[in-house]
Amino acid sequence: MGSTASDFKQSIGEALANLHAKTPLVHNITNNVTINDCANALLAIGGSPIMGNEKRDVEEITQICDSLVINIGTLTASTVEAMFGAGAKATELGHPIVLDPVGVGASQMRDEIAARLLDELDICVVRGNISEVKALAGVSSSTRGVDAAAADAVTRDNLEQAAEFACSFAASAGVVAAITGPIDIIADATRAVAVFNGSYMQGRMTGAGCLLSSVTGAYVVSHEDPFIAALAAVCSTGVAGQVAEGRMGDMDGTGSFRTYLLDALFRLTPEQLSEMAQIEVIRG
Amino acid sequence: MGSTASDFKQSIGEALANLHAKTPLVHNITNNVTINDCANALLAIGGSPIMGNEKRDVEEITQICDSLVINIGTLTASTVEAMFGAGAKATELGHPIVLDPVGVGASQMRDEIAARLLDELDICVVRGNISEVKALAGVSSSTRGVDAAAADAVTRDNLEQAAEFACSFAASAGVVAAITGPIDIIADATRAVAVFNGSYMQGRMTGAGCLLSSVTGAYVVSHEDPFIAALAAVCSTGVAGQVAEGRMGDMDGTGSFRTYLLDALFRLTPEQLSEMAQIEVIRG
Amino acid sequence: MGSTASDFKQSIGEALANLHAKTPLVHNITNNVTINDCANALLAIGGSPIMGNEKRDVEEITQICDSLVINIGTLTASTVEAMFGAGAKATELGHPIVLDPVGVGASQMRDEIAARLLDELDICVVRGNISEVKALAGVSSSTRGVDAAAADAVTRDNLEQAAEFACSFAASAGVVAAITGPIDIIADATRAVAVFNGSYMQGRMTGAGCLLSSVTGAYVVSHEDPFIAALAAVCSTGVAGQVAEGRMGDMDGTGSFRTYLLDALFRLTPEQLSEMAQIEVIRG
Repeated sequence: MGSTASDFKQSIGEALANLHAKTPLVHNITNNVTINDCANALLAIGGSPIMGNEKRDVEEITQICDSLVINIGTLTASTVEAMFGAGAKATELGHPIVLDPVGVGASQMRDEIAARLLDELDICVVRGNISEVKALAGVSSSTRGVDAAAADAVTRDNLEQAAEFACSFAASAGVVAAITGPIDIIADATRAVAVFNGSYMQGRMTGAGCLLSSVTGAYVVSHEDPFIAALAAVCSTGVAGQVAEGRMGDMDGTGSFRTYLLDALFRLTPEQLSEMAQIEVIRG
Repeated sequence: MGSTASDFKQSIGEALANLHAKTPLVHNITNNVTINDCANALLAIGGSPIMGNEKRDVEEITQICDSLVINIGTLTASTVEAMFGAGAKATELGHPIVLDPVGVGASQMRDEIAARLLDELDICVVRGNISEVKALAGVSSSTRGVDAAAADAVTRDNLEQAAEFACSFAASAGVVAAITGPIDIIADATRAVAVFNGSYMQGRMTGAGCLLSSVTGAYVVSHEDPFIAALAAVCSTGVAGQVAEGRMGDMDGTGSFRTYLLDALFRLTPEQLSEMAQIEVIRG
Repeated sequence: MGSTASDFKQSIGEALANLHAKTPLVHNITNNVTINDCANALLAIGGSPIMGNEKRDVEEITQICDSLVINIGTLTASTVEAMFGAGAKATELGHPIVLDPVGVGASQMRDEIAARLLDELDICVVRGNISEVKALAGVSSSTRGVDAAAADAVTRDNLEQAAEFACSFAASAGVVAAITGPIDIIADATRAVAVFNGSYMQGRMTGAGCLLSSVTGAYVVSHEDPFIAALAAVCSTGVAGQVAEGRMGDMDGTGSFRTYLLDALFRLTPEQLSEMAQIEVIRG
């Protein structure tokens, strides 16, 4: 018999308590737009970030870390080399790897690099929006830059199909899929849950997805089941988004929201996370 | 007969309404200091940013976008290639291009690259401070790094001469010139207006000019007349600066100001923009 | 007879007054994680930042600046060339150079580059955490990524030994050492003081050390004695950290703290700095 929403809520609280106890050291090779937010989000949730992206440097950096996050938001020839170098080392060491395939579907280079990363490295969690994950799965998708295409949106009505796609992608790629948007889907080969946390404001700031991927990098070290780790990360940023939105005053906008989001991640407790998480089990 | 200040105020409000309706996708090749502010400002005003700067990637990125912003704040050999690659594609596709010649006059490389970008690409708007635009125009200027030189400052007293210079530069370069500082000048070959919006605090944070250039990239897609687009962008960030300054409390400084500025851009309405814009027509 | 704590408190107030009067132009070659914070901190304290990191560009950039800050947080082959190019020029021109050896001890590349920078350039101030400075000094240290190792922590109990190490490193490297952490040590060959300012929150945000190094780059232009300059920089960010922590409300975390820190640097006065500085002379 599968886990209930209540079981999952308890497990993600435990994962956050573990994270707080461990302070995982997370190596991030990420884009230069949201790199600061990624580092600050990792620190806020209780991890410790390192951001080395020079190929000569990355193997040693990865070696002293607990996990690796690869985010392809702004690829360059040089960061691509660093990604494969660090990724090979992390795979060899058994460090969990999180892949954020930002903008896959928007260019051949992104498609090719993301596919190779997924193929050559032992990726643990793929975190992306629905259009990106569809592009990665080779399902045709109408991506619009770094945002999900409206036609792809996960809704109450297509939740079953979305879960089916997510499980099928997770199975064939051998990963946990964390597909985020207004409704989030977390899936592995057999399990799928939907998460209803989050704020519309997360779609109006840059980096909400990137910082979630970096936070996932801390959680994969803090719970042995990467499905729970990914779920905990998605719920953490979702709950923090709701807390942040709740603080907004009449004159506040995306500037204040971003500040409040980091504040809320910093103050997030295991109890608050368990209580506020809105999880619905689709496939137990 | 030329347009009055009142006409311009109405037009920029319409431009913002259009921008909100269109959510233009703006490709930015920019510096790594203020890239996050550029992306967040674009999102706040109602656009959508993509920041790809790898030469293999940029043609495809530009192709799915509506406009291109090139900011030379921190040039590298590799981003220069990306600028020309994306710029050639945008020119071929007829996408409007905004050029921000950050720090022109401070090094030969910046002078040479800015001149070539202006020459080889179909630039629509040049947005810079007065020292940068003078350097670009080949008029001798005493630049001081990335800030305008005091000797160059546009004041009430030299407004006519500044407008003459701006129109003459705009005519010879075939662009709209948006020259910003305590008093802003927007000019094309025949028209010139001065804008008196803005806050002294915008000179005390990094990136106030860069984020204006990125916001301009959203406006050039939202109004057919690039003069109105540039004017709308300058007034938008100026009005937002005033709103932000007005919110500042006793303990607030540049940290809070930056947050409030993004908040104000996020909350800016067409009516507020039209009402608060302080425009003076110099050449109708 | 040596200076008393009271003498030092007066001198750092004078250094800030000078800084405000001079607006030093500081060339930063820094990492891409905290580059925006470095620029904003420099502006907040009253300096003016330039961040060029392209080898073709850096000599001219350095030439128009007053000082140079080299931060090795995210080295790449290309930024390394820029560091040596700018550093050689700054050395030739007699511009003071601040070195922040971020993550030394974490990889061979960082060790090698930091050692060469220290050897080949005329470094004025080295600003790092205790593990980084120990690694730079060739004293074995158990670094943990970019954070200091717990075993290395400077405490009330080992303050004398820490000062001895700092003076000895300063003497052999010919620099002022600014070793920061919960307790900071500033030392040259003969003098050592401890600083007790700062907030625990500075360890929970990314870039607290980086922005201190950039602020040091403004101070070394503002006081002829680099020991006073480094001390003033350490006390400035420490006092600002306390002011920022004091502003924190029930829902505030690292997001708000970072904003308040920049605010406090912006509002810092010479009098406030002198009054709030908590300095203890170890070796006069």
